[in-house]
Parts: sequence; structure tokens; C-alpha cells
Amino acid sequence: MPNPALLEAFPTPSDTTFVIEHIAEEFTSVCPKTGHPDFGVVTLRFAPRPARDGGVCVELKSLKLYLQSFRNEGIFYEAVTNRIRDDLARLMNPLWLLITTDWRGRGGIRSVIRAAHGEVPAEWRTR
Amino acid sequence: MPNPALLEAFPTPSDTTFVIEHIAEEFTSVCPKTGHPDFGVVTLRFAPRPARDGGVCVELKSLKLYLQSFRNEGIFYEAVTNRIRDDLARLMNPLWLLITTDWRGRGGIRSVIRAAHGEVPAEWRTR
Amino acid sequence: MPNPALLEAFPTPSDTTFVIEHIAEEFTSVCPKTGHPDFGVVTLRFAPRPARDGGVCVELKSLKLYLQSFRNEGIFYEAVTNRIRDDLARLMNPLWLLITTDWRGRGGIRSVIRAAHGEVPAEWRTR
Amino acid sequence: MPNPALLEAFPTPSDTTFVIEHIAEEFTSVCPKTGHPDFGVVTLRFAPRPARDGGVCVELKSLKLYLQSFRNEGIFYEAVTNRIRDDLARLMNPLWLLITTDWRGRGGIRSVIRAAHGEVPAEWRTR
Amino acid sequence: MPNPALLEAFPTPSDTTFVIEHIAEEFTSVCPKTGHPDFGVVTLRFAPRPARDGGVCVELKSLKLYLQSFRNEGIFYEAVTNRIRDDLARLMNPLWLLITTDWRGRGGIRSVIRAAHGEVPAEWRTR
Amino acid sequence: MPNPALLEAFPTPSDTTFVIEHIAEEFTSVCPKTGHPDFGVVTLRFAPRPARDGGVCVELKSLKLYLQSFRNEGIFYEAVTNRIRDDLARLMNPLWLLITTDWRGRGGIRSVIRAAHGEVPAEWRTR
Amino acid sequence: MPNPALLEAFPTPSDTTFVIEHIAEEFTSVCPKTGHPDFGVVTLRFAPRPARDGGVCVELKSLKLYLQSFRNEGIFYEAVTNRIRDDLARLMNPLWLLITTDWRGRGGIRSVIRAAHGEVPAEWRTR
Amino acid sequence: MPNPALLEAFPTPSDTTFVIEHIAEEFTSVCPKTGHPDFGVVTLRFAPRPARDGGVCVELKSLKLYLQSFRNEGIFYEAVTNRIRDDLARLMNPLWLLITTDWRGRGGIRSVIRAAHGEVPAEWRTR
Amino acid sequence: MPNPALLEAFPTPSDTTFVIEHIAEEFTSVCPKTGHPDFGVVTLRFAPRPARDGGVCVELKSLKLYLQSFRNEGIFYEAVTNRIRDDLARLMNPLWLLITTDWRGRGGIRSVIRAAHGEVPAEWRTR
Amino acid sequence: MPNPALLEAFPTPSDTTFVIEHIAEEFTSVCPKTGHPDFGVVTLRFAPRPARDGGVCVELKSLKLYLQSFRNEGIFYEAVTNRIRDDLARLMNPLWLLITTDWRGRGGIRSVIRAAHGEVPAEWRTR
Repeated sequence: MPNPALLEAFPTPSDTTFVIEHIAEEFTSVCPKTGHPDFGVVTLRFAPRPARDGGVCVELKSLKLYLQSFRNEGIFYEAVTNRIRDDLARLMNPLWLLITTDWRGRGGIRSVIRAAHGEVPAEWRTR
Repeated sequence: MPNPALLEAFPTPSDTTFVIEHIAEEFTSVCPKTGHPDFGVVTLRFAPRPARDGGVCVELKSLKLYLQSFRNEGIFYEAVTNRIRDDLARLMNPLWLLITTDWRGRGGIRSVIRAAHGEVPAEWRTR
Repeated sequence: MPNPALLEAFPTPSDTTFVIEHIAEEFTSVCPKTGHPDFGVVTLRFAPRPARDGGVCVELKSLKLYLQSFRNEGIFYEAVTNRIRDDLARLMNPLWLLITTDWRGRGGIRSVIRAAHGEVPAEWRTR
Repeated sequence: MPNPALLEAFPTPSDTTFVIEHIAEEFTSVCPKTGHPDFGVVTLRFAPRPARDGGVCVELKSLKLYLQSFRNEGIFYEAVTNRIRDDLARLMNPLWLLITTDWRGRGGIRSVIRAAHGEVPAEWRTR
Repeated sequence: MPNPALLEAFPTPSDTTFVIEHIAEEFTSVCPKTGHPDFGVVTLRFAPRPARDGGVCVELKSLKLYLQSFRNEGIFYEAVTNRIRDDLARLMNPLWLLITTDWRGRGGIRSVIRAAHGEVPAEWRTR
Repeated sequence: MPNPALLEAFPTPSDTTFVIEHIAEEFTSVCPKTGHPDFGVVTLRFAPRPARDGGVCVELKSLKLYLQSFRNEGIFYEAVTNRIRDDLARLMNPLWLLITTDWRGRGGIRSVIRAAHGEVPAEWRTR
Repeated sequence: MPNPALLEAFPTPSDTTFVIEHIAEEFTSVCPKTGHPDFGVVTLRFAPRPARDGGVCVELKSLKLYLQSFRNEGIFYEAVTNRIRDDLARLMNPLWLLITTDWRGRGGIRSVIRAAHGEVPAEWRTR
Repeated sequence: MPNPALLEAFPTPSDTTFVIEHIAEEFTSVCPKTGHPDFGVVTLRFAPRPARDGGVCVELKSLKLYLQSFRNEGIFYEAVTNRIRDDLARLMNPLWLLITTDWRGRGGIRSVIRAAHGEVPAEWRTR
Repeated sequence: MPNPALLEAFPTPSDTTFVIEHIAEEFTSVCPKTGHPDFGVVTLRFAPRPARDGGVCVELKSLKLYLQSFRNEGIFYEAVTNRIRDDLARLMNPLWLLITTDWRGRGGIRSVIRAAHGEVPAEWRTR
Repeated sequence: MPNPALLEAFPTPSDTTFVIEHIAEEFTSVCPKTGHPDFGVVTLRFAPRPARDGGVCVELKSLKLYLQSFRNEGIFYEAVTNRIRDDLARLMNPLWLLITTDWRGRGGIRSVIRAAHGEVPAEWRTR
């Protein structure tokens, strides 16, 4: 069962804004309609608040355990994406957060869902 | 025959805007001029209205059946693209909808057609 | 309905053995179990008999029409592959024929089937 | 000899703006300096005017024959690109037209030329 | 728990030897040491016995359910591969069977395991 | 018109066997049935006889002009391949020669033709 | 131990703004938590001040030695990125500096971190 | 020795703005520090002034000879890039010019340098 | 210092021959001549003896620690490869073992070294 | 001028046969006919004799200098390949040596030349 209590954070190491991207390539949950497993890639992109404002970053091992907690949950693509966005926004209160889920799909249709929180920082727009 | 009655929708799970992309890689219809089959990829990108405004998302299985209903229809590339845009805009009344059809082509010429509805949301522009 | 009567042949232009490969990337038939369309790539590789022995090659346009005749046929992967092998072996009586069908698959499983007739010629082994 | 009389158009099927891209991967002409053949890819991207304003689209088969009419013409890369832009702008009077020619090149230098007409529509900018 | 009782077979449609390849890209089991999930691709290649000798092929949907039955099983890479080889050899008694598992790995090391049964047929050697 | 008189050769620089591969990526001829241009890649692989036996190699610029002489010729894929094999075998009398033509194709079917002369040398088999 | 004293700079060769990108594909440091090595790619992008304003560029060999000085340091991804940004900003006082670190990751999660200094110049935005 | 006297120009064929890109994939010069050769790709992108304003384009063969004149010159990456930008800006006085050099690098670090002149035209920004 | 005492083995799970491939993508050692770090990919392929003959497989975590023990060792490519082959042959006494090291290289030259022990099993030859 | 006196060798570190591959991606010489530079990749593959038989390996830095000595030499593709094979065979007297040169080509034709010495060892055949 998706368990946000597994998530931990650590203080950001900088007083300047920067951008972090974590790409979890081994996500799996279960389709609530068919009972068959779904497989996808979950990407987090976020800008923590500066250190002086108490900014924090999600800790990697805790993120992995949190994402594994969806393994046997029956849940739709759209709900997974919004759920992860909400749990991480609550944990980090970041300047910006973008969750993208990219699913292998079924029956010849692949899907990509993205949900955001806050303003995109300049560092990201200027790739 | 293209049949929009096959399309079903479900309520969006969120009160925030987010973006959904469905990529149907196995589309086929028939060229009305030559009678030969056409093959292409149909991509939908849309932002549903928020839940509190009655926003809805197209249901995946119904989308698949709707796209299969073009299988033996004689119809041009441009008409397919505008037809799908119109049928889905009517179903979902979304904030934004972009239909892209990418055709394998004939005689050394490949084609890509795109037709839109509404305003592109910030989430999409900041990929 | 698969229609081998659509197939035509022309005399091979050479008295030496050579190898021909035709890759039809737009094959579609229907799954007899679910009624959903299947999509795949059909590859023919063959060595016609020499001209002095009455060797013939399948004509390309007729091959295209023959493959299109499977469009609305309910037929399994294995049967498609053996059927094409048999129809083309009967048409050309070649020294060698190898049919490979490569399917996009369903539910996370892709399939490739290959069925042969006759001896692989040296020209092919030494690619 | 490049022959714009070969070009035909048909009425756009929609009253909304949309974007069409045709990619002709088998273009060849002749270098007027060396007499050697040049090979390239010609891409058209355009937005027809709405149907109610008499908007038209170039017909695909006529486009193919028009592009083939350059086959034995001695003409430079830059002139090919501007010529196609002018001929198609005259035919369609589109809201926007962008011609890109991508040449295989000679002596270790590849070239890409692009010439435009009109304003880029929002549908294209938001890919 | 890996459950070979889920596997079903159907009679091969041909009296000639041919080769079938099924590529299951969404396999997951659990590492018995760490409890973390493992992800991999399982590929089956086999040649069924001819129809007149009672040859059978594994049915695709049953194969999918069988592979899903490893989802929460703690089992090593090597054991998964040998187990699938043994279960399918028992089901089909094929002329040839090759199981390849390709794992995403851990800590910078990826692994590929392959286990075979019977003789490789000529159709496969001459790809 | 295909003109083998354009071909020139130079003495091989070695008394040992070696292998030469020339890949001409810009071949074009005309389909005798439809009058439309065909585009393909022509690959020559050959082993010249040793210098002491009078071995020769085709000169590159002359090869280019020879291949350009097919530009406006109406000729089928199979005939192009056998013709080039025969013209080059006559010019060089090599230990081994393999001509492969790889065509962009028409109507969803691509073709590859290969025609050989002589025995494959050990240097090539052990790539 | 990360040693910024290893860094050297040379005067920029131009009075106009330009952009330099160095991609160091062989970076390694040590995870302070597990003691296991981390591997990544470090990319620097910067615009030196004009020559007349005393602008300088980091010297390549000194950059290499500086990056090697992290080899046996226990340090987190986020700290590596901010540290390199700070050390290079101090050395060059550039108009713009963007550090991107792209890590191979652990346990199925890859990470990319980016930290900037100053304003993105027009030359970079218009790639 | 880099020799701008080798460069020649021809009048632009159009009164509208357009964009030309030349990609020279076989550039080599010598590192002034180590004496070892450097290898890279030099890309020119420019918009000539309109014909009525006396706009000119660099001639391709002269560009090739000019780039070859760096072959045995000891010169740094940054200087090569600024030098080519200055020589071509002087030759063509274009509306816009962007020189990008992409170097294979040394000791695990690859470099890309870009130097510009004038304003980016709309045709390029809307690729 | 390379430490074979770190290596552990476990009994093979099968009485039939099978093949295991481990690909360690994050290997690093030090060049004894220049003191600069070397980076490469180390691939092990082996066939353990059957269980009834006491066959064993190298344990993955111990393999990782063993490969990490080369991190600060000054050692040439050829010696690394032969050393790993010898240490693993001694540990497992396998039917077959092939070590391949693929190095990123220096100064424009990449290297691949391979050293073997025992006979290649049929399972591997028929990939 | 190609200078084999630059080549140095060191004793092989093993009494077993093994295979070494060096890939020099930055080779350049000059076409003796046109005076234009040629660019290519030179690959050496060889098996040194065992240490007890006095086997030696070419030293990497000396190989680099030797290959650089072709930089301003006017020499044909075929002669480069045979020359390198002869110089290295004389230096190392290896069990096996295969030289492959892969040229970027001119006028739409790329070339690959390969010249060998001795018998291919089993380690290489079973890649």
C-alpha cells in the first residue's frame, strides 16, 4: 500500500536554487480493473527551497522504499502520478516539483502522465 | 466506420491541472483514393479541467475501440486528424487537446498532421 | 480472406543462385480469440531456382495484395507464418525460403515466428 | 525541369488552423558545377488557411511528381530551397510555410537549408 | 509462487519444424537476500515437435499468467532461469528450448543467464 | 544506360589476400513498370587475386561514374544486382565478389538482393 | 580530497561573449553512506567575461586533475555539484556557469543534478 | 596556416531571409601544447543579408579548402572557433552567424565551443 | 590492491550446463605509467560445472567487492584481464570462462582485451 | 612519412593465448590523387605468442605516434591497410593479426578494407 511515512528528507546543501532529477526505472503497480501488473518509469524533478529557508531534499533510499510500496496496489496511472506529486510536495514543500510517469502500456497504447507543483525555475528552462 | 459513441470518460482524479499523453502505435485506416491501407501512430495530449469543474479523462479501453473503428474506413490523413480532435474535444471539453498523426507514408513521402483545441498548459511547455 | 490466387511470379533473371529479401512492415490480421487486430512485420528470404531450371520470383505488387488479404482474417501468429511459407513455396518452388513474422504483441509479450523450406544457400550464410 | 504546373491542391477539411508536415526522403537533383547528382531530404511544414477563407492543401501525389521534376536539373542547394518555397507559397497562399532541405553533401561537408513564408502558428511552437 | 499448473498448450499447426520466440519484457521477482524486487526480460525460443508426433506450443495468455506468478517470490536469477526451462520442457517436450533472462541488475552489475534443452534446429542457426 | 566501359581497375598492392568493401549510399535507377525513381544502397565486397597472379581492384571514381550511369535506366532490383555482379566480375576476375542492393522500397515493402561470385575468403568469415 | 588549488585559468581569446562546454565522462567519487564508488558524467557550460574585462577560461588539464581529486572522497551527489559550481565560479567569475552531474545511480534510480551561477547568454538559448 | 584568402562568396539567391547550415565533419588541427592532432566537427549556421542589400553566401569548395588550411596549425579550441567566426563574418557580413566546434577531446573530456555574430533570425528559432 | 580473497562462490542450482554473463559497467583502475585513472567495462561469461560434479558460481556481491579492489591499483589493461581470468578460474574451476575488458581509452585509441579458459559450451555458440 | 621505427613492443603478460583489440578513431592521411585529406578508423586485432615463446604486444603510445606519422603522407586506402599489417606483423610476429580500416569516403562511397596475417584464434571466433 502506498506509504508516504517511508519518505525521509535531508537539508539542502546550498543557499542557491538548484535542480534535482531522480529517474526510477523499475516502478510497478497493479491495474485495478484487470488485476494485471503495470510497469513504468517515474521521474521526479524538483528545486528545493534554499538552506536558509529550511529547504529539504528527499533521501534516495527512502524514495526507493516508498515507490516499492505501490508494488501490489491496484491504482490507475493518473492516480499514481497525482499521489506521488502530493506526497512529495507535502514532504519537501519545494519551489518546484514535476512528476512524470511513463508507462509501457497495454493493447498498443502507451501513456505518459505529468503533474506539477509550483513554478519552474530558470535553471531548468535553460537546458 | 469511425464511431464516437464508443468513447467513454471518467472523472479526473485531481483539482490541479495535469497533462496526459496516450500514444496509439497501431492505427490503420484505408486510403479513399487507392483503397490501400494506411498505417500510422496517433498521439493524444490533453489537460482535463479540474475535478471541481467536472473535468473528465477519456477511458483507455474505449479509446482503443474507437480508434479501431477507423480500420476499414476510407479517409484522408487530414480528415482523420481533425475528426479525432473534434470527437475527443466534444467528449472531454478539455483545457487543451493536441492530436498528432504520424503516417508511414507512400512513394517516399511520410506525413505528420497535428490539430489542436484550447490553450497549451504551463506543465507541457516546461518539459 | 488469405488469397494465394493473388500471387504472381516472374522468371528469375539469372542462371546463378542469388538471394532476395522482402520486408513488409505493415502487416495486420485479427486475433481469432479476442477479435482485436494484430500488427507485425513479415519478412521473406528466398533463393529462386536458376533460370535454366525454370526458376521464378514472386512479383512485388502481387505480394502486397496477397498480404493485404489477411487484413480482416481471424488467424493465430503460428498459422499466419506457416500459411505464407506454404503459399509461397507452392508458387515459386524455390531452393530456399524463410518466412519470419515479428509481432508487436500484447500484454507485455512480443513474438517472432520463423518457418523455412529447403536448404540455406551459401550466399546467405556468409553475410 | 522543375515544373510547378504539376502541383495540385485540395480544400482544407477544417475551419480551425492545423499543421501539416510532408517529408520527402528521396529527392535528387544535379550539381550545376560538377554535373554529379545531389541527394537530400525535402521537408514541407505548413498551416493552410481555414476552409471559410478558401484554404487549400497540396495534394500528395502531385507533390511527388513536382519533386521528381528536379531529377535532372542542374541547380544549387540554396536555389532548390527558395524555389520550392516560392512555388508552394504561390499554390497554397498558406498562413505559414517552412521548407527545409537536408543534403548528404560532398567532400566531408553536409548542408541544411531552410526558407520560410508567413508566421509560425502556435500549434507548431508547442510541440 | 511460481505455478506451472497455470501453463496451457495447444497443438502445433504444422508437420514441419519451425521456431517460436516469445519475449516477455515485464518480468519481476524478489531477491531472496535483500527483499528488493528484481526486474528482467525473459525470452523463450523453442521448436515444437511436428503435429504428427503430438507437438504442442505454449499458449500465450497462460504463459503470461505463469510468469506473473513469480511476482512476489524470493528467488535467485540462476534459479528463475532453470525453473522456467524445466517447467516449459515438461509442458511441451520440444525439440529445442532456450531460456534467456536479462536482468537490470544492482550495484553496477547486469546479468544474463541462459539455459537450454535439446538440439538447436537449423532454422535458428541460419538467422 | 548502364555503361561498364566506364569501369577502370588498378593492380592490387599486395601478394596476400585481403578484402575490400565499397558502400555506395546514393544509388538511383527507374522502375520500368511505373516510371518512378528507385533509391538504394549498393555494397560491393570483394577479394582481389594476389599481385603475382595479376589481381586488380576497381578504381573508386570510375565505380562512381559507372553506378551513376544507371540513373535514368528502367531496370528491376534483381536485374540491377545481377548486372553489377557480372560487370565487376568481368572487370576484376576476383577470388570473391558479393553485391548487395538495399532498396528503400514502395508501398510498405523494402527489398534487399544479394548476388555472389567465387568463394568467401577466410578474412571475411572471421569478422 | 577535492582540491581547487589544482585549477588554473587562461585569458579568454575574445572580446565577444562565447560559450564553452566541457563534458568529463569519467568522474568517480565515493558514497559517504555505503562506501561504494559512484560514477557519473560532469558537464560544465560557461560564458567567460570579455577579454577587456579580464575574462578567463579554466585550463583543460588542470580541470581534469581537479576532477580526479574527488576520486576517494566520500561526498553526496548534491554536494559534488554545488562544490564544483562554487570552485569554478570563484576561479573564473564568469558571466554564466551551469554544472550538470549525471549519475549512473543505484538500486534502479538514476539522478541528474544541475546548479547554476549568473545569467544564461543568448548564444546558448538559441541552440 | 589558417588562410581566409581561400574563402569565396556568391550572391544570395533570394530577397527573403533564409538560413544555411554547413556541417564539416572532418576538421583537424594541432594542439599547440602537446603537438598531438585534434579532431572535431565544425558547424556554420548563418542568415545572409537579402539580395537587394548585397547579401552573399560562402562558397562550399572554398570553405572546405579554408578549413583544410588549419591542418598543421598549432591552435587552441577556443581560438579556432573565434577565428572562424571572425573570418566568415568579415567575408559575408551576415545578419546572423553561429560557429560551433565539437571536439573529440583528450583524457576523458570532450569540449564544444560556440561563438556568434548578429541576431538569431526567426526561421531558426522555430525549428 | 586486487584481492581474490574477497571472492565467494555458491553451488550451481542445476545438473545441466548453462551460461552466466555478468557485466560490470563501472570498473576503474590506475595506469601504472601516467598515474591517471582508467575506466572500463568488465564482462564475465562462464559455464559452471554441473551440481553433481561440485560446480559453483561466483556470488554477485563478492564479485563487486573484488572488482572494487582494483580501484587504486596501478595495472595495465592486459594484466587486469589475465588476472581476473586467473582468479575466477581458480575460484570456480568452470567448464568455460571468458573475460572481456572494454576500455574507454586515451588519446583517441580505445582497447578491448579478452582472455579465456576452457571450451565454449554449445549454449553460447548458438546465441 | 609512415615510420615503423616509432613502434615499440613489450612482453606479453601471459602464457595463454588472448586477444587484444585497439581502435584508433582519429586516423588521417592524404589522397595521393586529389591532395585532399582522408579520414578513417583503424582497428588492430591480434593474438600475441605466449610469453614462453617470446610473445610481445605493441605499446599503445608508440602505436599512436606511428599512426600519426601517416598524417601528411599521400597514400591509397588499400596501401595504408597492407602497410600497417606488414609493419605490425614484423614488430610482433603474432599468432594472428587483422587490420581493418574504415574510411569516411568521398562522393557518396564509403570503404572498408581488411588485411590479415596468421590464423584466427578460438577466443575471437566465439565472441
